[in-house]
Amino acid sequence: MPSPIEFYFDFSSPYGYIASEKIDALASKHGREVTWRPYLLGVAFKTTGSAPLTSIPMKGAYHLRDMIRTAKYYGVAYHHPSPFPISPVTPSRAFYWLHAKDSKLARDFAKALYRAYFVDGIDISSADNTVAVCARCGLNADSVRAAIADQAVKDLTRVEVAKAIERGAFGSPFIIIDGEPFWGSDRLDQVDRWLQTGGW
Amino acid sequence: MPSPIEFYFDFSSPYGYIASEKIDALASKHGREVTWRPYLLGVAFKTTGSAPLTSIPMKGAYHLRDMIRTAKYYGVAYHHPSPFPISPVTPSRAFYWLHAKDSKLARDFAKALYRAYFVDGIDISSADNTVAVCARCGLNADSVRAAIADQAVKDLTRVEVAKAIERGAFGSPFIIIDGEPFWGSDRLDQVDRWLQTGGW
Repeated sequence: MPSPIEFYFDFSSPYGYIASEKIDALASKHGREVTWRPYLLGVAFKTTGSAPLTSIPMKGAYHLRDMIRTAKYYGVAYHHPSPFPISPVTPSRAFYWLHAKDSKLARDFAKALYRAYFVDGIDISSADNTVAVCARCGLNADSVRAAIADQAVKDLTRVEVAKAIERGAFGSPFIIIDGEPFWGSDRLDQVDRWLQTGGW
Repeated sequence: MPSPIEFYFDFSSPYGYIASEKIDALASKHGREVTWRPYLLGVAFKTTGSAPLTSIPMKGAYHLRDMIRTAKYYGVAYHHPSPFPISPVTPSRAFYWLHAKDSKLARDFAKALYRAYFVDGIDISSADNTVAVCARCGLNADSVRAAIADQAVKDLTRVEVAKAIERGAFGSPFIIIDGEPFWGSDRLDQVDRWLQTGGW
């Protein structure tokens, strides 16, 4: 059984969202599983000296256009949300709390969160909204609310973010296949070829 | 007759080189011409706060790998050169001097310069080496050497670089089709679709 594909992403990242709509089918086509790992891009930015794309002169205006165009290119529903970007901390904590119980449910929850933000325009940085998305996935709202505020869940999230950075993740999506890193939704074609040939 | 595609690139950019091997055939497939416009990415970096990729923590190691892999993915010959990066000033001046005389010859010269650097490992930041590449293209070595040092050619180059930045170029390659900007060799697929559909 080949190793799962590592899929690192930030809940505020449009390109992470686009990849999230494609990665499972792509992996499955090649008989692979995917480990979903949200992290905080802002922590990596402290090392790379980068910043949220839309805050950068010249790049900002370009990326607002490119995000919409790229979603369209991949056939993924997309409405550029406002506010943007947002803090991914609360949905990441909810994810890791759930992930410790049921990784498949956590993945479905991650997809639901991404769609809530990038399709329905719901600000998932708010605990109330993250709890509401959880409730739609069949989870108990009070348990989710308690989990988000739980110090153990905060610590777990911090550990997972540190692990992502240790693995070299500095962008979103950041995909690792058997040690080979791929950054960006625009590397999905290379991911596909790599999975097919085992390197080329 | 549709407008030519604007192709902005930096002579030290691996992704610019990869695109340079593809852009003419891609444009021609859709009945378009290409205007080749070398510029100095370092000037745009002053606005975007960016830096040469390989100098950035985390990103540097990734991109060294990605440049080689991406060239392979596109079937483009590539040997990562040393020194890297280099100043693109001298080859850009030689280009614009030649471009004022013969734009088609200037394009062929740009391709030859890129290959000299990214295939043969010749440091084209040196005037001697740029002159040698020119000579291989059938140009008179003394004329090229004089042109590179000519204040009028330096001024012309400065004007063209300023124009590129005014058009919004901040990366390499940076491709504009009827006002729509595409950044990166990884946007060639979107360029192809855009040319086919006139936007989508």
